[in-house]
Amino acid sequence: MTFAANTMNVPSARLPFATHHDGRFKGNHILSVSQFSLEDLAYIFDVAEEFRLIVRRIGIMDLLKGHVLATLFYEPSTRTSSSFIAAIQRLGGTVVPISEVRYSSVSKGESLPDTIRTLESYADVIVLRHHEVGAAALAAKYARKPIINAGDGIGEHPTQALLDLFTILQERGKIDGLIITMLGDLKNGRTVHSLAKLLSLFKVKINYVSPDALKMPADLKSLLQEKGVQQAEYSDLHPVLGDTDVLYVTRIQQERFEDPREYEHLKDSYVITPEVLQGAKSEMAIMHPLPRVGEISMDVDDDPRAAYFRQMEYGLYVRMALLALVLGKA
Amino acid sequence: MTFAANTMNVPSARLPFATHHDGRFKGNHILSVSQFSLEDLAYIFDVAEEFRLIVRRIGIMDLLKGHVLATLFYEPSTRTSSSFIAAIQRLGGTVVPISEVRYSSVSKGESLPDTIRTLESYADVIVLRHHEVGAAALAAKYARKPIINAGDGIGEHPTQALLDLFTILQERGKIDGLIITMLGDLKNGRTVHSLAKLLSLFKVKINYVSPDALKMPADLKSLLQEKGVQQAEYSDLHPVLGDTDVLYVTRIQQERFEDPREYEHLKDSYVITPEVLQGAKSEMAIMHPLPRVGEISMDVDDDPRAAYFRQMEYGLYVRMALLALVLGKA
Amino acid sequence: MTFAANTMNVPSARLPFATHHDGRFKGNHILSVSQFSLEDLAYIFDVAEEFRLIVRRIGIMDLLKGHVLATLFYEPSTRTSSSFIAAIQRLGGTVVPISEVRYSSVSKGESLPDTIRTLESYADVIVLRHHEVGAAALAAKYARKPIINAGDGIGEHPTQALLDLFTILQERGKIDGLIITMLGDLKNGRTVHSLAKLLSLFKVKINYVSPDALKMPADLKSLLQEKGVQQAEYSDLHPVLGDTDVLYVTRIQQERFEDPREYEHLKDSYVITPEVLQGAKSEMAIMHPLPRVGEISMDVDDDPRAAYFRQMEYGLYVRMALLALVLGKA
Repeated sequence: MTFAANTMNVPSARLPFATHHDGRFKGNHILSVSQFSLEDLAYIFDVAEEFRLIVRRIGIMDLLKGHVLATLFYEPSTRTSSSFIAAIQRLGGTVVPISEVRYSSVSKGESLPDTIRTLESYADVIVLRHHEVGAAALAAKYARKPIINAGDGIGEHPTQALLDLFTILQERGKIDGLIITMLGDLKNGRTVHSLAKLLSLFKVKINYVSPDALKMPADLKSLLQEKGVQQAEYSDLHPVLGDTDVLYVTRIQQERFEDPREYEHLKDSYVITPEVLQGAKSEMAIMHPLPRVGEISMDVDDDPRAAYFRQMEYGLYVRMALLALVLGKA
Repeated sequence: MTFAANTMNVPSARLPFATHHDGRFKGNHILSVSQFSLEDLAYIFDVAEEFRLIVRRIGIMDLLKGHVLATLFYEPSTRTSSSFIAAIQRLGGTVVPISEVRYSSVSKGESLPDTIRTLESYADVIVLRHHEVGAAALAAKYARKPIINAGDGIGEHPTQALLDLFTILQERGKIDGLIITMLGDLKNGRTVHSLAKLLSLFKVKINYVSPDALKMPADLKSLLQEKGVQQAEYSDLHPVLGDTDVLYVTRIQQERFEDPREYEHLKDSYVITPEVLQGAKSEMAIMHPLPRVGEISMDVDDDPRAAYFRQMEYGLYVRMALLALVLGKA
Repeated sequence: MTFAANTMNVPSARLPFATHHDGRFKGNHILSVSQFSLEDLAYIFDVAEEFRLIVRRIGIMDLLKGHVLATLFYEPSTRTSSSFIAAIQRLGGTVVPISEVRYSSVSKGESLPDTIRTLESYADVIVLRHHEVGAAALAAKYARKPIINAGDGIGEHPTQALLDLFTILQERGKIDGLIITMLGDLKNGRTVHSLAKLLSLFKVKINYVSPDALKMPADLKSLLQEKGVQQAEYSDLHPVLGDTDVLYVTRIQQERFEDPREYEHLKDSYVITPEVLQGAKSEMAIMHPLPRVGEISMDVDDDPRAAYFRQMEYGLYVRMALLALVLGKA
């Protein structure tokens, strides 16, 4: 079974800065994975790869010196906010972190648009995390400065999906032709939904392995089918592990279960151990959006296929790329 | 009706850096609006205007490189702390933000003077927000480094008053001769009290429009009368709207009311809508200290007279000016 | 009674950068006071002294430009985190502060090793404060980047002990030959335990003055005895005050007492006032790890012997030195 490129050359992990015109994303909002074409992704990943090399060699650059990022987090997400804070700093910019929104003027009834318009008095770009679906789009409607959606409830988390895709590209050197297996809670996982949408731009096969109660939503499967993506569903990993190029493991979040016993029953059904991996390809990449609780044994961490900590680092470069692009400085 | 300048030329919004000797505020504390002369204001606003032009052109400067600001907030105020954080960063300095005082050594019983003396071991200037009146003055008594009062309970919030005055100057090009109408809760509003004191240095007329229960305090009115300020009180906006040059709207804070029904009754009495504004001058400036809850309709936001979001931006420049001045670097 | 140097020359407070080879601490973790030799201390303090002079003259340097510090605080400690934040900034580096761990992924069950491995994707060095003994050592086991222990429960807080020792050196010009008197809660005070361990490398005499219930632990006294340190115990300060070169006062923490009356009874037993100090040497240094609650009267603050606020400033330089050293940049 082989997969050919979908509509254009897949961006190579080391493709040089090339045919892309500058300023493509300048002033744009980053709201949803749906906004990106294949060409957009190639451009973002080229910039991210450039930044990866510079950070490794030099650590920091002055590209965004004089630019201020505001991180507006209505719900805590240390992982995501820290990643953006490090990203702007490694580009020479500074950050105004706003993470205690619950204590601030917002609790006195200020609307999201007013908060956004206040922040853009100080800042050049705003990263927004909110508990309500559509919050980022609402913010973007009123903002004069670029808004980057860092998660709006059960809605979108586009920068996570972009870093997941960049990880696949970095770890496997290509995307077209791969067999990607998603494992765990595929019903509630915003992460796998967004990644699946992005993957629909490529010629891939996706296997879904989940308990019956936590299957990938039907409307998403229909969407991918229309785009021509091969999909298959399983409740057991073993039949598909041997063919898998990328194993994307997700957390089964305890807070999704009303009955604690159901959680206890399911949580150990999908645990990746060195024994499980004996049936896998030697170059398979194991990914996880983190935090993991027990879905991947710590015994796997030293396996060269374990890509989940590198995944966090790739996220830094993707977020650097997005910040530089929307500020017109890439 | 015309108003002549009070004692000296009013600072022009674009007055060049001129007769002022450098170092006027070096090492000074910023504690109260009462400490400023007309000449001081002219100097501060000249520096703020200079910084406004530089930020618009370049974004950032290295004027305060090597200087560390500590923001010590005993109560949360995202708006004010963010503004100071952006201000020091746009001047090339850095910030040590301390906003979780409730969890820190303070809760183990440390005195404010000890906390201040600890912070000045690390920092070159301290911005202090505290819930007790007089806290900033107490801190200043013990500090070797400049203290900037960012609000001490129902006491003072001088940087807010300065940015309000700078906004009037920027929006109307002058201050002398203007008719300023203050609307809303004038009894509890620290903001309007401080602004009124600053305005008493100029030749202005002030109208107070408020419910009977929320009138401007008598002692403040007496103080302004002694300074020769024309004042008049109303319970309805309409008689004075047509003559008003600056309409300063304040929030009627729900937490001030013991009886929720009283709040419900009053809160809609003073709501600015496009209809209300039909009777206003075409160049009137509408200001609000923010956050607003419902005192100004969002339909007004696109009106060129709506100055309340620009007001936040002017605050950035005023705070940059104050930081540079007390550090002797303007 | 005189004391000679222990094994080598004591580092002078102004000893020039000299025989030490660069890179001694590069990539190392700072976990415990037990890891330092006399030569290590001389090296660290030379670098700290160098930084002290540079900060006083210039304020900041670009030595760590391009380096990112993550401060990971599982329990709040404004004093320590602020000191490290200022330290990295004064070296030209930047910080990703993580102080709300209780709201973050950790509360979803993420292990400390995973959090560390995530952070080192963004950061070049991690300062860790944790409530559990051994947390820093656990983190170091998994980390590829240097870990600096900023307190692990009742375990170690090595940077505090180093700054205490540096303070003694700066205030008295030497360490060998001094009589150091520790006062207060010597049973629960992590600070005095670590300092006593460091002092055991020198030829000093230590007096312990404490209530019976709060005496220095026997195992620690045995350890120091083996190293040849002269030790003596008292319940009253007066017999030893006249000979004391350094008086190290500690807080009697209210939260250590189950019975509030016991606290009330003891808390005023060891209060330093100007009257108490009449019996002390004119060059004695009074130290305190801060925060103080009432152990030292504010009337003492203007006494030139009061070193406790300078102690905080020395801490800045020691932490700057440690950051630069583990990053191989001193």
